[in-house]
Amino acid sequence: MTKSFGSDNHAGTHPAVMRAVVDANTGDAAAYGADAWTERATGEIRRLSCAQGEVFLVLNGSGANVLGLGLLLGRHEAVICAESAHINTDECGACERILGTKLLTVPAPDGKLTPELIARRLSGRGDEHCAQPGVVAITQATEVGTCYSLAELRKIRDFCAASGLRVFMDGARLANAAAHLGCTLADLAEHADVLSFGGTKNGAMCVEAVIVMRARDAVSAPFLRKQHMQLSSKMRFLAAQFIALLDDELWLRNARHANAMAARLQAGLAGLPGVEVMYPVQSDAVFARLDPRHIAELRREWTFHVWDETTSVVRWMTAFDTDESDVDAFLASIAAVAGSLPV
Amino acid sequence: MTKSFGSDNHAGTHPAVMRAVVDANTGDAAAYGADAWTERATGEIRRLSCAQGEVFLVLNGSGANVLGLGLLLGRHEAVICAESAHINTDECGACERILGTKLLTVPAPDGKLTPELIARRLSGRGDEHCAQPGVVAITQATEVGTCYSLAELRKIRDFCAASGLRVFMDGARLANAAAHLGCTLADLAEHADVLSFGGTKNGAMCVEAVIVMRARDAVSAPFLRKQHMQLSSKMRFLAAQFIALLDDELWLRNARHANAMAARLQAGLAGLPGVEVMYPVQSDAVFARLDPRHIAELRREWTFHVWDETTSVVRWMTAFDTDESDVDAFLASIAAVAGSLPV
Amino acid sequence: MTKSFGSDNHAGTHPAVMRAVVDANTGDAAAYGADAWTERATGEIRRLSCAQGEVFLVLNGSGANVLGLGLLLGRHEAVICAESAHINTDECGACERILGTKLLTVPAPDGKLTPELIARRLSGRGDEHCAQPGVVAITQATEVGTCYSLAELRKIRDFCAASGLRVFMDGARLANAAAHLGCTLADLAEHADVLSFGGTKNGAMCVEAVIVMRARDAVSAPFLRKQHMQLSSKMRFLAAQFIALLDDELWLRNARHANAMAARLQAGLAGLPGVEVMYPVQSDAVFARLDPRHIAELRREWTFHVWDETTSVVRWMTAFDTDESDVDAFLASIAAVAGSLPV
Amino acid sequence: MTKSFGSDNHAGTHPAVMRAVVDANTGDAAAYGADAWTERATGEIRRLSCAQGEVFLVLNGSGANVLGLGLLLGRHEAVICAESAHINTDECGACERILGTKLLTVPAPDGKLTPELIARRLSGRGDEHCAQPGVVAITQATEVGTCYSLAELRKIRDFCAASGLRVFMDGARLANAAAHLGCTLADLAEHADVLSFGGTKNGAMCVEAVIVMRARDAVSAPFLRKQHMQLSSKMRFLAAQFIALLDDELWLRNARHANAMAARLQAGLAGLPGVEVMYPVQSDAVFARLDPRHIAELRREWTFHVWDETTSVVRWMTAFDTDESDVDAFLASIAAVAGSLPV
Repeated sequence: MTKSFGSDNHAGTHPAVMRAVVDANTGDAAAYGADAWTERATGEIRRLSCAQGEVFLVLNGSGANVLGLGLLLGRHEAVICAESAHINTDECGACERILGTKLLTVPAPDGKLTPELIARRLSGRGDEHCAQPGVVAITQATEVGTCYSLAELRKIRDFCAASGLRVFMDGARLANAAAHLGCTLADLAEHADVLSFGGTKNGAMCVEAVIVMRARDAVSAPFLRKQHMQLSSKMRFLAAQFIALLDDELWLRNARHANAMAARLQAGLAGLPGVEVMYPVQSDAVFARLDPRHIAELRREWTFHVWDETTSVVRWMTAFDTDESDVDAFLASIAAVAGSLPV
Repeated sequence: MTKSFGSDNHAGTHPAVMRAVVDANTGDAAAYGADAWTERATGEIRRLSCAQGEVFLVLNGSGANVLGLGLLLGRHEAVICAESAHINTDECGACERILGTKLLTVPAPDGKLTPELIARRLSGRGDEHCAQPGVVAITQATEVGTCYSLAELRKIRDFCAASGLRVFMDGARLANAAAHLGCTLADLAEHADVLSFGGTKNGAMCVEAVIVMRARDAVSAPFLRKQHMQLSSKMRFLAAQFIALLDDELWLRNARHANAMAARLQAGLAGLPGVEVMYPVQSDAVFARLDPRHIAELRREWTFHVWDETTSVVRWMTAFDTDESDVDAFLASIAAVAGSLPV
Repeated sequence: MTKSFGSDNHAGTHPAVMRAVVDANTGDAAAYGADAWTERATGEIRRLSCAQGEVFLVLNGSGANVLGLGLLLGRHEAVICAESAHINTDECGACERILGTKLLTVPAPDGKLTPELIARRLSGRGDEHCAQPGVVAITQATEVGTCYSLAELRKIRDFCAASGLRVFMDGARLANAAAHLGCTLADLAEHADVLSFGGTKNGAMCVEAVIVMRARDAVSAPFLRKQHMQLSSKMRFLAAQFIALLDDELWLRNARHANAMAARLQAGLAGLPGVEVMYPVQSDAVFARLDPRHIAELRREWTFHVWDETTSVVRWMTAFDTDESDVDAFLASIAAVAGSLPV
Repeated sequence: MTKSFGSDNHAGTHPAVMRAVVDANTGDAAAYGADAWTERATGEIRRLSCAQGEVFLVLNGSGANVLGLGLLLGRHEAVICAESAHINTDECGACERILGTKLLTVPAPDGKLTPELIARRLSGRGDEHCAQPGVVAITQATEVGTCYSLAELRKIRDFCAASGLRVFMDGARLANAAAHLGCTLADLAEHADVLSFGGTKNGAMCVEAVIVMRARDAVSAPFLRKQHMQLSSKMRFLAAQFIALLDDELWLRNARHANAMAARLQAGLAGLPGVEVMYPVQSDAVFARLDPRHIAELRREWTFHVWDETTSVVRWMTAFDTDESDVDAFLASIAAVAGSLPV
């Protein structure tokens, strides 16, 4: 079977992560995170992110997003985010359902907010009829594979600080962003009040971390995590996954590799007729527009998502375990198909 | 280190379950449950429970309870449950937070509801000032280690059906109940509209199943599961755990063993001065009252929970991996301690 | 002081309504709606709307909208509405907060949805990652003063019925729509599953009705109304207001008058330089674009809202008690201002 | 028809209140509370309560309770209250539905909490599995007609302050408590962080006030009030009611009268065979136990609630408009009935 370009979560678990899970299976351990694995994993993430607060392991990306936002939102407050934000488009309305919050969306080119875009949703502040933004949610890397530069993050951070807004960073693919920017976790984390640090899309089996930068924002976190059904009893098996990812920077190596495979894919597309790359390729995804008949033809052999039926845009994702040969074979198919039909 | 008698989730993962997880790590698989492992696990559970509806894998027990109740509750409805119910005492108010529902509690001897106890909370039906019960939640095996007999379940089921109430069964330890009663999963499931079927406390790493008995109650389940942040992306690793548990009735063998260890513990307590067993031992827990000084002494060497400080009652739990020698060593310590102080 | 053109809720209470409130103050009456006034008011509204279900009096427009939507929404479902819908722009996120639902908005010219616009939000149906629309919310008359024709309503109704969607009609200004269309309450109501029927903007003091067209949708209404804090204890004083409005068609006469005053205002604007009417004037509001300096000048003497700062659009509203002389004086001011500055 | 002893909300509106409502109907006024009546009413309540924060008018008692609690509760927190608290028994689960909070109830003799009773619900603090109390809700006067003394209030206040708990006071009948204790509004208010001040049960038509003692707790109040559907557009008609109640201490005179009528009723019961008064009569209610056959007989002529069918306890309430002759006639009936059957 051909390698999937459908999603970084089509991949399995990295062997080192799996080994760590197996190795954690040694007799009894205290439940709910009062174990040595959890202490080590959260301590290490805290250190790497220079967080003054705490780190909480949760079960998936939606869990991380909803918990992170819940820690920062006043009871009555709303969230500003890009229209393309995962919390807006791909979580079935979880933020509204669980937090009771409204998402104030802005169309964002390349998936990235800017102070100017955020400012568009601030006009009704103080008016009791208008939803009151309290948090700005950004995704790094974004849902369309782009990355905020550190300078862009700083601008957002400064603007939000000056505007009485907190910043939540959805870091389901934070590793890919760090790999692209060549920066540390702390370089990214300093621009958020709370952020998530994704494991699952980067070689883990089932774990994400919520990093709370300031201690005061972490006070309610253990309780909200439990209420949000994100507290795992045999937590050591979650923590072990992060321990493996953090060991010898596997998280960064995995992300670098996936990014490199996406770059290789993009490079191979250059000059192919009828294939238009839509966004800068800055993480592990390539978005491309091609003829719907070409899409249909390619999908007979390869797995990937049609991102937008109406505009005929597809998403091709790489993963920690995508090989150069996978990319090359896929490119060969694309080239064959692209040449096979009059465009 | 001595074996923990603190909880069945202090135990690790059963080797066969771990092996299944490792074996599932074979290249790509479709995410979010569209994989062969999930189809096999849910199909098998559906078959064993004789459900006409569907089976959904979730990430933990609270997730299973909140999803299950959410499927059955009208938007305005409340839940009748025992005061000692896990959803009332141990989930940090998740049902109230996530479902917005009120729990109408009843003190229940031995942790078990009866039609008479349920009826106590029905007096305000139809009165718009009173919370309106829509679902009765029972736990099987209960939080104090007892089991409803099939006859008791039938009485509740019939009463609820006649009263316009649905039944949710919290089956975090359903396997222990089946083992105790010598009955099938279907024998238990037929008395509920929706039930959970626990994996984690019975040798799995991190998985529970929600069994929806009728198709019409399952319609909103995929969406609520996603909103409740209970949808795992790399679902195969959850499904693989259940496949292992179902294989050659490992789920039942694990539960039988844990039950047998609890029975052995209870048997060994007979005749010990100053140790009073509080409830019939019908699953994997022994609740005992003993002198607070004895409790303190025992906890220097052994791990277990004090269930109720005020009444000096402790909970001793066994697990799939508790050995006879563990029980005997623990009994020896108890005997030594019980004899060591004037009671 | 000059007459306000700011809102139809700047007006006071119609004298006949006030008289009815005073007249209802005769000794004791059963609370919470078990009184003769409530029976009469709700019975009459039920008759006029040909509802097979029930009618519930509530305390304000947001209360009516949230209750109405809550009756129709499955626990996991979302609402499709126009971007300009009051529930989206002017209720501080109440639907998200109280119902936990997501609003799937569509830009709607003239404030009106169409089957085509609704269809744009249906692409993700059945996909557990996408919010699932269950209800379409339309406003009649709309927030920009336009009215759906009965034919337009029928198209929406038929499309929704064929698509498994329910229809909620926000009728805060339903009377104005009936007056404009020359139709009955029943003509409007038959196109909705649940609708609100506004009193407050049409001469009442503080009351709205929620009309539930089918009995089965009304089952949870008394309880949700209480939970939503919309149940008034001394209900007779709410009911009396509707009795007065229904008596001799005062509701329709009030609305006709307000509509006529808006039409007079629009007619007077014709030919004025620098004043552009933005939408068909089909109820009690005129939206106009004029020079920001003209707006500022006019607001020194007159009360009205700037609808959109960025496009320099204002809203001028009439009410049941707006006189022809008020309109004429306002027009004279507008004309004077419009001529006073180079545009 | 005989005077109702069913509830203080069976009474109509006090003539002075009604007159104030009629007098407020003078042309236009800004909506949503930006009017002179609202400024005057809220300013006066603020002054009388010595609040440093703000006062918000809402539409009913449940609205006041849910808003008040919402202002004080952290997102994850629970409420400690008496089992007999109105929020627990008579609001259909509104707190759970709207705030997502759990009510941690305590059986409270005479309806009153004490530090000792509150302390019973504090054992699980800091444990993420246990609902975390953040607010203690007390009712003054209580649901069984008793009043906390100022010394009792101070003890609760001090205990809560020392325990990191905030205090919400449900003052639906605060006037009756002030009348009973002979104290000021400020004397009561200083023992709460937020309290409600009831109008409707004390001669108003439809209004309650939420008093926020500290400015920082009021920040989110305007937005939560709107989200909770408690913001009235023609607010002046709510404010006018309070203006009348505050004028020449009508609120206190009404409450004193109702209290006196309850005291007269209690006095008249003394010595009647088969009638047992259950609680100290300290406001406008008398709870009595009598033979079920006597209850049935009395209800043929008189209106009142059976408080508890199982214990045969009834509630007799007076109101601002209960006459001495009403009480005496009722007493005569009770005496006749009590003597008519062998007890």
